[in-house]
Amino acid sequence: MQKKIIGVIGAGSADEKILKTAEEVGKLIAERDAILICGGLGGVMDAAARGAKSKGGMTVGILPQSHRGGANPYIDVPIATGFGEGRNVIIVRSADALIAIGGEYGTLSEIALALKIGKAVIGINTWDIKGIIKVDNAEDAVNKVFESLILDF
Amino acid sequence: MQKKIIGVIGAGSADEKILKTAEEVGKLIAERDAILICGGLGGVMDAAARGAKSKGGMTVGILPQSHRGGANPYIDVPIATGFGEGRNVIIVRSADALIAIGGEYGTLSEIALALKIGKAVIGINTWDIKGIIKVDNAEDAVNKVFESLILDF
Amino acid sequence: MQKKIIGVIGAGSADEKILKTAEEVGKLIAERDAILICGGLGGVMDAAARGAKSKGGMTVGILPQSHRGGANPYIDVPIATGFGEGRNVIIVRSADALIAIGGEYGTLSEIALALKIGKAVIGINTWDIKGIIKVDNAEDAVNKVFESLILDF
Amino acid sequence: MQKKIIGVIGAGSADEKILKTAEEVGKLIAERDAILICGGLGGVMDAAARGAKSKGGMTVGILPQSHRGGANPYIDVPIATGFGEGRNVIIVRSADALIAIGGEYGTLSEIALALKIGKAVIGINTWDIKGIIKVDNAEDAVNKVFESLILDF
Repeated sequence: MQKKIIGVIGAGSADEKILKTAEEVGKLIAERDAILICGGLGGVMDAAARGAKSKGGMTVGILPQSHRGGANPYIDVPIATGFGEGRNVIIVRSADALIAIGGEYGTLSEIALALKIGKAVIGINTWDIKGIIKVDNAEDAVNKVFESLILDF
Repeated sequence: MQKKIIGVIGAGSADEKILKTAEEVGKLIAERDAILICGGLGGVMDAAARGAKSKGGMTVGILPQSHRGGANPYIDVPIATGFGEGRNVIIVRSADALIAIGGEYGTLSEIALALKIGKAVIGINTWDIKGIIKVDNAEDAVNKVFESLILDF
Repeated sequence: MQKKIIGVIGAGSADEKILKTAEEVGKLIAERDAILICGGLGGVMDAAARGAKSKGGMTVGILPQSHRGGANPYIDVPIATGFGEGRNVIIVRSADALIAIGGEYGTLSEIALALKIGKAVIGINTWDIKGIIKVDNAEDAVNKVFESLILDF
Repeated sequence: MQKKIIGVIGAGSADEKILKTAEEVGKLIAERDAILICGGLGGVMDAAARGAKSKGGMTVGILPQSHRGGANPYIDVPIATGFGEGRNVIIVRSADALIAIGGEYGTLSEIALALKIGKAVIGINTWDIKGIIKVDNAEDAVNKVFESLILDF
């Protein structure tokens, strides 16, 4: 049986609190035996992947670059799209549901694309967009994201 | 010399007032001798393209489908991407600046992508996102979008 | 009624004979009142677009870059995809049929994609691939490409 | 350290001999502890992924669809691109080198894209294109593909 795939989206640079939350989210996703998918770069993506690897999880990075060199060191499977921001839609389509942590315009585009195609988006400290399920911490985010999958299947 | 390219983004269905604004925006873009680029489908995209054609303008539709059949009848150049929502990034990259009119999640993703890569976004009755230049009517929108180009060059 | 769209594919650099053929193909496409679509760059793409413009035709360039700066000066509508070679599939999908002139690996990928999705490919001095309709000169190529459209509709 | 990623490309349906070769290639890639990346569908893609899984390897499928449902059952990480044949360029960019087994036009497009961007392509019973390193069997293919990586690094 294929594992669940959880998207973690957020900015390439972020403050300590956001990064700590992202790392915790990564750990909890790995403990649930799901695959973590993200944009493969720094900041929230790096912290979440690091968290997942610390618990033996599997991590996938959908890179904007056309070569794998840009992936952070916690990515098991770097996917070199070469599509720049166009890769955001691939993250959203490949994830069963997503957790947005903080984030700038790139994250906003992913939130919008996810809601457009009907994927659940759990948000921590992120854009205030109708449709996002807001939570305050990593544990609630991961609980909610897996609840959304149960409702779906 | 290549013509300016103005993106018009908005939902595939919209109320009468929004559609009338979109048509007016299309007319004004054509009167400025710029190319109108949009998603090529219905609603705001159809109304804006119809407006542009009524003034002899040129219209480009970046379609989500892999064949040209889905284009509205006011599109001169249908580009069949086959990338679904992934085509939004192509609209944003190809436009010199954009006007958002109303809009749902798809439009929000385009606004976010445009602001991410530093393109000016003029908004009429659309999402309330920092970075958008808000205006109330078609004439102001088109004035502002061409002003943004002058600042750029 | 929307105009026919003819793709012209070939390498970014080519010898004089190939370039002359490409220019002639561009002229003949414009004289048939069809839109010429190509990769927007140099070599065969530049020569074909130049030919089309010399006869008042319309030219579209599907660029690999994420900005319009790379387009050759004969492109009316530069589409900045930012997808690199990923843009080849957009050329193929948007064209009603294609003419391949000379060409290297990029052209081969376009020929393969076109034949995969069932678009007619007329070839002059290009890769020897089953499925290509081979001709010797610009006039035959353009005649054959429009014949293929009649069979299709 | 990130694992090597080997692309296996071939048609969605193929004869028994081709499928057996693909399965053997998949096994040998897994035994070398590399990740197998492919188009995620049937035929050669299914056989190669099945081979890799039988040896405990990791498999990635870059799907044309916008949802993961189309992946064959031997894919650990289904990437839902929604780009149709446009996903071929992602397979090619993400692989460190590729093995082509048999194949139709889709495979030809991948061979062409790989050679265009300078990736090694080992071919078994596939298109006769200059630049392909031809071999007769699975073992030689996998030996050659890993040799190409050593030369690269």
